[in-house]
Amino acid sequence: MPKLILVRHGQSQWNLENRFTGWWDVDLTEQGEAEARAAGDLLRERGLLPTAAFTSLQTRAIKTLQFALEHCGRLWIPETKDWRLNERHYGGLTGLDKQQTRERHGDEQVHIWRRSFDVPPPDMEPGSDYDLASDPRYAGIAVPQTESLKLTIERVLPYWESAILPVLASGETVIISAHGNSLRALVKHLSGISDEDITGLEIPTGQPIVYEFDGAMTPGERYYLKDS
Amino acid sequence: MPKLILVRHGQSQWNLENRFTGWWDVDLTEQGEAEARAAGDLLRERGLLPTAAFTSLQTRAIKTLQFALEHCGRLWIPETKDWRLNERHYGGLTGLDKQQTRERHGDEQVHIWRRSFDVPPPDMEPGSDYDLASDPRYAGIAVPQTESLKLTIERVLPYWESAILPVLASGETVIISAHGNSLRALVKHLSGISDEDITGLEIPTGQPIVYEFDGAMTPGERYYLKDS
Repeated sequence: MPKLILVRHGQSQWNLENRFTGWWDVDLTEQGEAEARAAGDLLRERGLLPTAAFTSLQTRAIKTLQFALEHCGRLWIPETKDWRLNERHYGGLTGLDKQQTRERHGDEQVHIWRRSFDVPPPDMEPGSDYDLASDPRYAGIAVPQTESLKLTIERVLPYWESAILPVLASGETVIISAHGNSLRALVKHLSGISDEDITGLEIPTGQPIVYEFDGAMTPGERYYLKDS
Repeated sequence: MPKLILVRHGQSQWNLENRFTGWWDVDLTEQGEAEARAAGDLLRERGLLPTAAFTSLQTRAIKTLQFALEHCGRLWIPETKDWRLNERHYGGLTGLDKQQTRERHGDEQVHIWRRSFDVPPPDMEPGSDYDLASDPRYAGIAVPQTESLKLTIERVLPYWESAILPVLASGETVIISAHGNSLRALVKHLSGISDEDITGLEIPTGQPIVYEFDGAMTPGERYYLKDS
């Protein structure tokens, strides 16, 4: 039966520095690399070996995937990268220190930006250092100026339906290495979580989450490989 | 105009130990990883930035590609892996120490196996430790028991024609990270080298070789990026 493995990228430099990251391309820390390797080791130990891989266009997710695949002996499987698995775009908050942002805008406003379902942060300002309009990896893509979780879901789910689900339905064991909010989008859909509850669901870094599907492609309960 | 970059994987553990490798999946040494990173640095410095990548199903070529792409800021480009870019299969010589093989079979015989165009080494023996018939990465593929350079060319060129050339012709800058003999196959074809001369052509590890194509997809002279 088809199996789906979700992995959130390991710790990034801006996770460590407590800054809003979104689409900015921040690398893994050494700890983040170790988390990714450990995820691969766990897949190998449990014999849960992916046969097809998907990831975003962001270094931290791509490297997490590649470290994990190397450590479960699966570096050779097909690997597809797509912007629709990118992290939520944090708009004008990109690059800001979370604590400074709270001091400037108040705890309540920052909580709304981080945890509301459909209120996006302010747009990225024109000329921002973090503007990605000219990044060649996004050539031909209308880079958002900001995204709520709702907007993130609206680009993750069509990609899930059109690109990933058919591969899974063909019997592959699919691994997706992605980000807190693009994975929330998938978990919300697969586990039927409400708009209210999904924003509070924490996806831990480097911990493989597994769904097993039945013949009708209905997902079972999700579980963490670590605790199973 | 389309550009093609060929990179032979950096030093592997069995390059270092002077053993016949072929399809056996030997990892890079630290020096091999450094060669791969340096290749990426060179691509970045020269502004020769790949937009599409191809590699084999072998760890040493995949990792060389990924280190090089990371170091030229291109980890996000599409990456296709195919067994037809694998190294020549060394048959019954796989795993043997080259010096011991010379002592056992004589310099002349080993020279023929290594450097003749169409004489393959002896088949891999049944039950060999290096038999790959049950390796899941080759499921559905008739793994050869041995290959000459001629036989290697006979599987590399159809893949070049059907999978890589169309991407190149669409205007992409293509990087291929592969092996001494799968790259000889391509260089022979693109530079019009004779059967006699190709077996003596050494492809150095980790040194990007470049071909620029004209509008009729005729390749110019090949050059090493390092010396250009």
